[in-house]
Amino acid sequence: MSRVVKLAVIPGDGIGPEVIAEAEKVLDAVTAETDVTFDKTRFSLGAARFLETGDTLTDDDLAAISAHDAILLGAVGGTPGDPRLKNANIERGLLLKLRFTLDHYVNLRPSKLFTGAAGPLANPGDIDFVVVREGTEGPYVGNGGAIRQGTPHEIANETSVNTAFGVERVVRYAFDLAERRRKKLTLVHKTNVLVHAGAIWQRIVNEVAAEHPDVAVDYLHVDAATIFLATDPARFDVIVTDNLFGDILTDLAGAVTGGIGLAASGNINPSGAFPSMFEPVHGSAPDIAGQQKADPTAAILSIALLLDHLGLTAESARVSAAVEADIASRDGARTTAEIGSAIAARL
Amino acid sequence: MSRVVKLAVIPGDGIGPEVIAEAEKVLDAVTAETDVTFDKTRFSLGAARFLETGDTLTDDDLAAISAHDAILLGAVGGTPGDPRLKNANIERGLLLKLRFTLDHYVNLRPSKLFTGAAGPLANPGDIDFVVVREGTEGPYVGNGGAIRQGTPHEIANETSVNTAFGVERVVRYAFDLAERRRKKLTLVHKTNVLVHAGAIWQRIVNEVAAEHPDVAVDYLHVDAATIFLATDPARFDVIVTDNLFGDILTDLAGAVTGGIGLAASGNINPSGAFPSMFEPVHGSAPDIAGQQKADPTAAILSIALLLDHLGLTAESARVSAAVEADIASRDGARTTAEIGSAIAARL
Ligand SMILES: CC(C)[C@H](C(=O)O)[C@@H](O)C(=O)O
Ligand SMILES: CC(C)[C@H](C(=O)O)[C@@H](O)C(=O)O
Repeated sequence: MSRVVKLAVIPGDGIGPEVIAEAEKVLDAVTAETDVTFDKTRFSLGAARFLETGDTLTDDDLAAISAHDAILLGAVGGTPGDPRLKNANIERGLLLKLRFTLDHYVNLRPSKLFTGAAGPLANPGDIDFVVVREGTEGPYVGNGGAIRQGTPHEIANETSVNTAFGVERVVRYAFDLAERRRKKLTLVHKTNVLVHAGAIWQRIVNEVAAEHPDVAVDYLHVDAATIFLATDPARFDVIVTDNLFGDILTDLAGAVTGGIGLAASGNINPSGAFPSMFEPVHGSAPDIAGQQKADPTAAILSIALLLDHLGLTAESARVSAAVEADIASRDGARTTAEIGSAIAARL
Repeated sequence: MSRVVKLAVIPGDGIGPEVIAEAEKVLDAVTAETDVTFDKTRFSLGAARFLETGDTLTDDDLAAISAHDAILLGAVGGTPGDPRLKNANIERGLLLKLRFTLDHYVNLRPSKLFTGAAGPLANPGDIDFVVVREGTEGPYVGNGGAIRQGTPHEIANETSVNTAFGVERVVRYAFDLAERRRKKLTLVHKTNVLVHAGAIWQRIVNEVAAEHPDVAVDYLHVDAATIFLATDPARFDVIVTDNLFGDILTDLAGAVTGGIGLAASGNINPSGAFPSMFEPVHGSAPDIAGQQKADPTAAILSIALLLDHLGLTAESARVSAAVEADIASRDGARTTAEIGSAIAARL
């Protein structure tokens, strides 16, 4: 019985289109002899589209994207400091709008040090953990404002919103994931300072932990967590944390595992009510765009996450294995397309 | 003409008293043949004192401490999970209360990789930067709350408050510091997501930058900043950032420069209206307390910051040089007291 997956593809800006081309190459290769077909619709969104049309993400865009089974996104964002973009917040208006509207409450970010990948640590150890970052709450909600803007009396506030509903569902996801892994879960927050937000996270982790007696649970303040990411990242299995702390920890985690050129992510709505979205952690890097210098590995590993999410676990494992083999045999510089083709050729 | 400095000493909990004993040893040694005398008053504050008396920081404590010229603090905080402390937030009620009440708006945290100090990076480069962390605003203000606590309908908020007054004074301090150093300043924030708080920081940095044409200014999102701290920390000179981002970055910076056993800090009120407070970045580490296992170097380097703040620059430089020489010649384990004595002996 053949299956058709409707995939919305958003190549985006900068290096986005280049890395997405390679991700599609790999997706095509791994599904070539299966009975799964990806029916792709391309969406032209991002800074370039904003400059052309003035639109960031319209209701029509959203409706069209929502009608898909999943989303593959490259990277969005124009050249920093471009005056024409000064009133376009592509990050909030496009990327975060997708995450919030499509209720991507699990931002899944695995970190693994592949053999052959060179990170900055002298003794990295065997790094293999997943950050489960909350994706729809916290300081990211956009509940802020300013008065007396531009004057010496300006006051600018930002409010972090944390709900039991929102925290519980992501914490449950993290515990389920820990059950399928090494059964260790670390909550990262700053409970000693952000006492209200911290208390709701700690309470709910404690409550859900009681249902998972075989999962070892600990807690780290976010500042201490960065120390361990630099000195002993192998200690982590599953980290669950809020939107902002997750943003910070996963960039650092990407760095210690060989660079964000290798870091994949899934913005997941586990209920299936909305399509989940898969994207490399890196940005659009306009400075190297169009030069075939970008590493498409993070985008390709995002394909592995996409396949896994769709239940195509064998195909997902084949992509991961091909990436792992490619990284292990890397020497010398290759173009974006060369890396993509080499990985696709292993499938 | 002899000078008397009234110093409030708060050894605190855990390893606090051990490291402060060594810091005092060094302070005594470096001032022995000068005309400066430190007139010390000891304050018994922290988790131990709370357990004994129920008090964290009384108005009388505050008044007494405020009557000093400067404060030396070890570390405060009890054993994590001690049920008797569950309603005592020593961090907010004591440490942050001191920082806020004494208007310590500059939290000064230098990071330097000393010869002989072993950090986790394979190729650390020549690390020498200072984080100027805002100390009285941002997400640390404690403007939060929760409704329907403990229920599935709980909502817990935290508000970050940022004022032009508060941001400008710390940004000016950072630019003045950059002028005396390598003339490079990096603002770290998350302006693309925290748009209101981010905008006030960016605007004021731009305005003050115009008065310092010889300082090269750049900007990094906090997530990207952690990548550079792991991959190229030598690029930084002065970093200016908010209270929470500064907390996170300085623990990571401590780790990459050989551990928070070496990281010193000053909580400074540059106006002199209130006494400034000097403390190691590390915590009370109750697990190793009383065992002479703690490294007192961070506390001793905090003495160097204290001396510098008091205008005793020659004495400050002598302490730094003694620490530097001690680190360069380290081999084998020494007790807390042995390290303190070795550094004092070099003075
Ligand atoms: C581009 C930005 C809004 C985004 C975030 O902060 O989540 C990015 O840093 C990420 O981690 O995906
Ligand atoms: C103990 C805690 C309140 C404190 C902070 O968050 O500022 C500490 O982490 C620090 O960096 O001095």
